Amino acid sequence: VKPIEWRGDKLVLLDQRMLPFETRYVEARTVEDVAAAIRDMVVRGAPAIGITAAFGMVIALSEKPIDNIDDALKTLSLARDILSKTRPTAVNLFWALDRMHNKALSLASATSSVRELREGLEAEAKKIFEEELEAEIRIGLYGAELLEAGDTVLTICNAGGLATGTGLGTATAPIYVAKMLGKDISVIAPETRPWQQGARLTVYELVNNGIRTTLIADTALGLVMYKRMVDIVMVGADRILLDGHVFNKIGTLNEAILAHEFGIPFYVLAPTSTIDPKSSVDSVKIEERDPDEVRTVRTSQGKVYVTLKDIQVYNPVFDVTPPKYITGIITEKGVATQPLSVNLRKLLKNI
Amino acid sequence: VKPIEWRGDKLVLLDQRMLPFETRYVEARTVEDVAAAIRDMVVRGAPAIGITAAFGMVIALSEKPIDNIDDALKTLSLARDILSKTRPTAVNLFWALDRMHNKALSLASATSSVRELREGLEAEAKKIFEEELEAEIRIGLYGAELLEAGDTVLTICNAGGLATGTGLGTATAPIYVAKMLGKDISVIAPETRPWQQGARLTVYELVNNGIRTTLIADTALGLVMYKRMVDIVMVGADRILLDGHVFNKIGTLNEAILAHEFGIPFYVLAPTSTIDPKSSVDSVKIEERDPDEVRTVRTSQGKVYVTLKDIQVYNPVFDVTPPKYITGIITEKGVATQPLSVNLRKLLKNI
Repeated sequence: VKPIEWRGDKLVLLDQRMLPFETRYVEARTVEDVAAAIRDMVVRGAPAIGITAAFGMVIALSEKPIDNIDDALKTLSLARDILSKTRPTAVNLFWALDRMHNKALSLASATSSVRELREGLEAEAKKIFEEELEAEIRIGLYGAELLEAGDTVLTICNAGGLATGTGLGTATAPIYVAKMLGKDISVIAPETRPWQQGARLTVYELVNNGIRTTLIADTALGLVMYKRMVDIVMVGADRILLDGHVFNKIGTLNEAILAHEFGIPFYVLAPTSTIDPKSSVDSVKIEERDPDEVRTVRTSQGKVYVTLKDIQVYNPVFDVTPPKYITGIITEKGVATQPLSVNLRKLLKNI
Repeated sequence: VKPIEWRGDKLVLLDQRMLPFETRYVEARTVEDVAAAIRDMVVRGAPAIGITAAFGMVIALSEKPIDNIDDALKTLSLARDILSKTRPTAVNLFWALDRMHNKALSLASATSSVRELREGLEAEAKKIFEEELEAEIRIGLYGAELLEAGDTVLTICNAGGLATGTGLGTATAPIYVAKMLGKDISVIAPETRPWQQGARLTVYELVNNGIRTTLIADTALGLVMYKRMVDIVMVGADRILLDGHVFNKIGTLNEAILAHEFGIPFYVLAPTSTIDPKSSVDSVKIEERDPDEVRTVRTSQGKVYVTLKDIQVYNPVFDVTPPKYITGIITEKGVATQPLSVNLRKLLKNI
């Protein structure tokens, strides 16, 4: 599964709105195609949007024949305008467009060939894509060292390539890297209610990447550990405090405590940009969302109710895992082990 | 909510097939009505089926005027035949019909009045109903002693009155008893995938009985304990071994370990008939069911898919909770506390 694929003259984008019920790809051959794909959420997630927009700038120069550099720069300015209006809050979008625009100006001062300008921009877009991947690859390499052939990894939610747009992801990166290294790794993916990212996205993504994956209900977590069906737990993170507290998808705390009780290593995988050096555990508010997320379920037939519409619901999105349940935190700068409050700081200072 | 209500000349049965989306009652005024209700699963669960069939024998004598005892006994034999063919595996069905038939013979030897025969059978059916309730009431009384006003009980699945047919249940009995004693008790009910008995039945049952109930996703179990939103855990049981191992609905082990970690009392509630004095923990096979139960979800629009149809699934129905995580086991004969392997035996011997 490639959420974003560049084919020299067009982008092939996985339509994430249809997952997992339909694996549909959308081809973007014009700037308006690219803008629509971002606006209509064919592509989701800040890094993915940035990468897509960058290639949109390259596409701008292929749409129709352009005679000279000045016309090319005008075309690029117009494309930048169109693309920047697709999603107002995605910071990566503006960052990527600015970077591509600056590159165009710099190239135009050195050449009068439209072809060379286009080649230079294509190289820059590829570079943005590659840099996004780089942090995840490093996380994958560190994580893969902890995996032995035949291991089964338990994860939660989707901290995969669909979420980050690169196709690699954070918690999934070591699994993909281990596979490349010839290690046979299996995954157990819990459904992860209420949004079921495990059932809808993780299972889809891993199976499509040739990883043997088994879906379980969230209730079966204890039994799969009791029965020693899990060798190691790998999860993502939404926010990591310097003392080692980890905020992540609701259900992570359950996995951490169960793993601790059964003596199964529990790792958190995230780039160091996820580390919040300022907050204390009590100052972080745990977001609660619409009760209907628990009252309903996302299915092949849309959102449907699984209980009565007026049932009282508590729907926290995240939970917090205290550092004592965490074996280690894997970042692109290395692995922090216990004591986390000491070693996370060391990791950040060393680089 | 009354799953079964006797109104002197008819049964009013809650149609459990429609729950929680429709609260529909079915009236049974003839033997064929009663047979259909059992056959079509308007009424479910062995005790509920037994009670329903017993009242079916009373209804047999009201359908049309009967002149003499002999005709009455013939009518009862016919009714017994019809009712016994509804569900082949429900042991309580045959037990209840035999008991009603024997009672009829005994009454017929003492009176020639059809009216007196009918009154005697009505009293016997009520007695069967009352005896079913008795064990649950005792469990409720023992359990209610552990509840303080303002407590919040965490449960799992539906070990309620809908499951046992009495309207009281096992794990829910202390909550209802405490409410009668004027104690204000709240409940947190996890959805309990894959069958969602928590979301579909427990929440429905408790709210209809005036108990303040909050539904959570199974993933939120850890957080509600971390945040001290739970004072005590009360769950049912499918099988209890003499050494204290408890087999119950998948997800029970998660709750037990999390409660243990957070120092929250964890109680199992079940009649002593649930105790299996012969098996060892390794000899009990944990049933695995159709993968489609996890791939789909039961909704207001029927069963719909939440993931791809060919995803590999592990779908165990039960898990096993080791005795070290259990604070006590509450039966109609009293409460067995630690060490369970000693005190469960004592409990059985004392009575």
